[in-house]
Amino acid sequence: MTDQTSGAWFSPGMPVALDCLPCLLRQAISVVKKITGDSGRQAVLLQSLLQQASSLDLSLPPPEIARQMHQLLQQQTGEADLYREENRRQNAMALALYPEIHRRVQASEDPLELALRLAIAGNVIDCGVSDEISELEVAAALEKALREPIKGDLTAFRQAIHSARQILYLADNAGEIVFDRLLMEQIGFGKITLAVRGREILNDATRTDAEAAGLDQLVTLIDNGSGVPGTLLADCSTGFRERFAAAELIISKGQGNFETLCGSSSKVFFLFKVKCEVIARRAGMPL
Amino acid sequence: MTDQTSGAWFSPGMPVALDCLPCLLRQAISVVKKITGDSGRQAVLLQSLLQQASSLDLSLPPPEIARQMHQLLQQQTGEADLYREENRRQNAMALALYPEIHRRVQASEDPLELALRLAIAGNVIDCGVSDEISELEVAAALEKALREPIKGDLTAFRQAIHSARQILYLADNAGEIVFDRLLMEQIGFGKITLAVRGREILNDATRTDAEAAGLDQLVTLIDNGSGVPGTLLADCSTGFRERFAAAELIISKGQGNFETLCGSSSKVFFLFKVKCEVIARRAGMPL
Repeated sequence: MTDQTSGAWFSPGMPVALDCLPCLLRQAISVVKKITGDSGRQAVLLQSLLQQASSLDLSLPPPEIARQMHQLLQQQTGEADLYREENRRQNAMALALYPEIHRRVQASEDPLELALRLAIAGNVIDCGVSDEISELEVAAALEKALREPIKGDLTAFRQAIHSARQILYLADNAGEIVFDRLLMEQIGFGKITLAVRGREILNDATRTDAEAAGLDQLVTLIDNGSGVPGTLLADCSTGFRERFAAAELIISKGQGNFETLCGSSSKVFFLFKVKCEVIARRAGMPL
Repeated sequence: MTDQTSGAWFSPGMPVALDCLPCLLRQAISVVKKITGDSGRQAVLLQSLLQQASSLDLSLPPPEIARQMHQLLQQQTGEADLYREENRRQNAMALALYPEIHRRVQASEDPLELALRLAIAGNVIDCGVSDEISELEVAAALEKALREPIKGDLTAFRQAIHSARQILYLADNAGEIVFDRLLMEQIGFGKITLAVRGREILNDATRTDAEAAGLDQLVTLIDNGSGVPGTLLADCSTGFRERFAAAELIISKGQGNFETLCGSSSKVFFLFKVKCEVIARRAGMPL
């Protein structure tokens, strides 16, 4: 974060809270377990993580700390994409649901609101928060999404997407991206540039997942050049940062994007489920 | 744990599971926050904890790791007893409930079973698991205790406490110890030796708390000479270990005592609420 050349792009986002650390450790342990079932090797990997954690920069937002932990594990094991199978499963699960929920959106009195609700509900698919989301959990989240109040200014959102000629949509996770497709349909694919992560990290959506959801055929697809499970502008490619700066309107999905972008720009609408106390406090929303 | 003089007393208990570490970190962070509200100082304390954690011995049971973390914090801050006020509050809260629940036990068709249920319910007061238990949570736990099934052999427990001439009762937490009093009344104070922790650790009960519950006047009161939030025999005083060895029957309250004593002796009855997945798996009980 001391890179002066990217200084202008560095938005502080949300510094990690002490309460984030147990959750980040839980996340890392879940990755360690995916790497090996051997308890001796697990212990060695964990010690190196804790060693790294002891010189943590607590001014960083949680997704950057997550990236550093995963980078260390990748370096030590050569495993670049531990979530590929999980992502395939989540995409397939969401695609199986797609025809039915697409019909429901089409038949709805307010298709935009329903698509928005479902896109937010899709944010339940988050391996950073809970590994191995089941079909039942996703189905329950969808049902709940139909009834729950949406916090935030829906009218402003409606107006903004209506007026904007082009919109930058920041995807979050695999699986979830299929639900985003519903909202993008309502907005109009033509004006959307969809940005995915530049490298595999947790179950975050990459080009592979956008392609699995068929979105590469429908919108302008870019990646942000970064392997942070969020959008840390200083870590993103120059090309992405230019798009970000030039965008008329930005739709940002998920907690990771919120943690890295909150306070960065007034043209961002954040769509996410509040999944922890820290975010609830920061966003002024109930858990 | 390599001390040969105590080797004969060392029972391995339950080695820490990877999944325990985020919870232990959460516990340590809660202590760090009690020590100081200054975020810079919190960060320094946390870094030193993580530094220590990176050379953790993962064969130790979780309570011994908790002790090491708290010892480090005590050394760095000089704060020996951060939970004194919390313990006072919990004792006072339980003592306020005591007359009413005592009457309910007396009036019950099966006073022993009800007292046992309430003693287990009292185990909800555990700052290792969740800081700042409210009166409402305790009340809810008591109500639930009246309906929930008790896992384990109640008949064997009944017979064992009936036949034993003397019983060693290992207390767990402040506040909870008042609920233990109900069960001790049913067993008969005369045959009970009550053991509390030898030093302050989290909200674990010490002599001060046994005295607050009036138990020093009713039973033989000892302490185990140790500051582990459990009963790590290798860390306990010789006197306590002799009592442990000589005891006809041992009643062990709480997860910490289970984590350090499970598998150690067939004369131990473990009474506790299952409060995490790791313990649920180890005990073969649902969460």
